[in-house]
Amino acid sequence: MKRVSLSTIFRLSLYHRCLMRMEVKGIETTSSKELAKEEKLTPAQVRKDLSFFGSFGTRGLGYPVKQLKDKIAAILGINRKWNVALIGVGNVGSSLVSYKEFPKQGFNIKLIFDNDQRKINKFHKGIPVSDIRELKVKLKQDQIDMVIVAVPASAAQGVIDEVIAAGVKAILNFAPANVVIPEGVILRSVNMAIELEHLSFALVNRSLFKF
Amino acid sequence: MKRVSLSTIFRLSLYHRCLMRMEVKGIETTSSKELAKEEKLTPAQVRKDLSFFGSFGTRGLGYPVKQLKDKIAAILGINRKWNVALIGVGNVGSSLVSYKEFPKQGFNIKLIFDNDQRKINKFHKGIPVSDIRELKVKLKQDQIDMVIVAVPASAAQGVIDEVIAAGVKAILNFAPANVVIPEGVILRSVNMAIELEHLSFALVNRSLFKF
Repeated sequence: MKRVSLSTIFRLSLYHRCLMRMEVKGIETTSSKELAKEEKLTPAQVRKDLSFFGSFGTRGLGYPVKQLKDKIAAILGINRKWNVALIGVGNVGSSLVSYKEFPKQGFNIKLIFDNDQRKINKFHKGIPVSDIRELKVKLKQDQIDMVIVAVPASAAQGVIDEVIAAGVKAILNFAPANVVIPEGVILRSVNMAIELEHLSFALVNRSLFKF
Repeated sequence: MKRVSLSTIFRLSLYHRCLMRMEVKGIETTSSKELAKEEKLTPAQVRKDLSFFGSFGTRGLGYPVKQLKDKIAAILGINRKWNVALIGVGNVGSSLVSYKEFPKQGFNIKLIFDNDQRKINKFHKGIPVSDIRELKVKLKQDQIDMVIVAVPASAAQGVIDEVIAAGVKAILNFAPANVVIPEGVILRSVNMAIELEHLSFALVNRSLFKF
């Protein structure tokens, strides 16, 4: 079966958001042309992305907004709730706890872990903070599906090894470290400062970087 | 000239961080083997990445830590300060203002823009907040090099058009929207919820997604 590219998944997330906004406005039907216009893409691109996952809509009548939104949600796996744990509640971790788009899209941070005794056994914005030494036991107990790692770079690999040993298969990593994971586990890495370093690199190395 | 891949730039950022840690520990010399071990890469990969930018170190003697760190900083363009403006100081924008890695790597948020009258003409964590209507004039006046866009999806393209019209060439976009930019401008997009949607997609579509 053909593999889906990361940019297709990204565009599906955009379509889903666009359809949510249309639904709120009471719009019942849309078209590849309208979706394309909203997302600054070509109608052909929209049709291609959607056709990959089966046939949607009726020729000449367009797509029913709610139905298409629900189908894309099912494809993205956001037609359900996911149990998420946050590891490390420092500056970055703390900002993620109040990130409103997570619960809106079905991602519920249920557990927080830290190694700071002043934070452990307290609540952070309503979520219990546990000792990182209880990581493996609690991830299993609470049936955590995904983990967000926001620990210092030096601790990242150790923490991620434990997360994987607990059976978690999906990890979003904010630590600025390269980590090794076994097959069957999906890891995405984000670091805001490194994103800006991509920009500064591009600005000073115009010849080496395709704009 | 050969183009540099995004993953090479990412690894340069990691090497730089690794060398900073070594410097703090008082380590004066390192090797591709040590750097590779720290970052879970192969020594060959490290040597390949570094050789792309000229010859470093002495065969058999390794790399002088400080010198290599400085050279990588120059390649990444972080051997200098960059003037950054933040547009939109909601939940996401606000968390970025206190992101400690930005100033540490030379990225100084000098200006904030918003369209909320309650925020305008006040200070947010020490940084002045201006009316978004003054965007173009102030970006030029303050010689802003890079802009971080943290506005709602529907406002993103308009804001980015103005930023580009003001002569800014580098944009980090947190709005969950596809935006069109002219040639000669570099744009990176980050959305934390969409990152998690990549994970949920991968979990429910194992056959479509390479783990």
